[in-house]
Amino acid sequence: MKVTVLVRLKSEVLDPQGDAVRRALDKLGFNGVRSVRVGKLIEIDVDERVAGADIKEHLAKMADEMLANPVIEDYEVV
Amino acid sequence: MKVTVLVRLKSEVLDPQGDAVRRALDKLGFNGVRSVRVGKLIEIDVDERVAGADIKEHLAKMADEMLANPVIEDYEVV
Repeated sequence: MKVTVLVRLKSEVLDPQGDAVRRALDKLGFNGVRSVRVGKLIEIDVDERVAGADIKEHLAKMADEMLANPVIEDYEVV
Repeated sequence: MKVTVLVRLKSEVLDPQGDAVRRALDKLGFNGVRSVRVGKLIEIDVDERVAGADIKEHLAKMADEMLANPVIEDYEVV
């Protein structure tokens, strides 16, 4: 079973990587870019027989403990 | 206008970061994870008046030139 976890910096956390991308786009001539935020796209192939019925809970635990830093990031299991 | 660009490594490209995450999950006791691939989630706030009507094309050009490395990565504008 394939699941996707999207990890985003919380909106109150500065994103220097995103700002660098925004400036670079501007220099390349792409005007009108107001802001850029860079997060992570994590695609996981899980064996559903092992993860069990509570797979959503299992994935949330994974994201909390390993995939995202809950102090500065939010995640979403898709 | 907010748009999301998903950047993934092409399937034939090795992903050492994803492999490290898979091994770490296994060590933390999350069994049954077959594979992990890590990509980028880029959220862009574009001024649609500047980008014009061909905003999809504008974004595809951005992704080709700056957001993704077309040699090893694929992108998707959502």
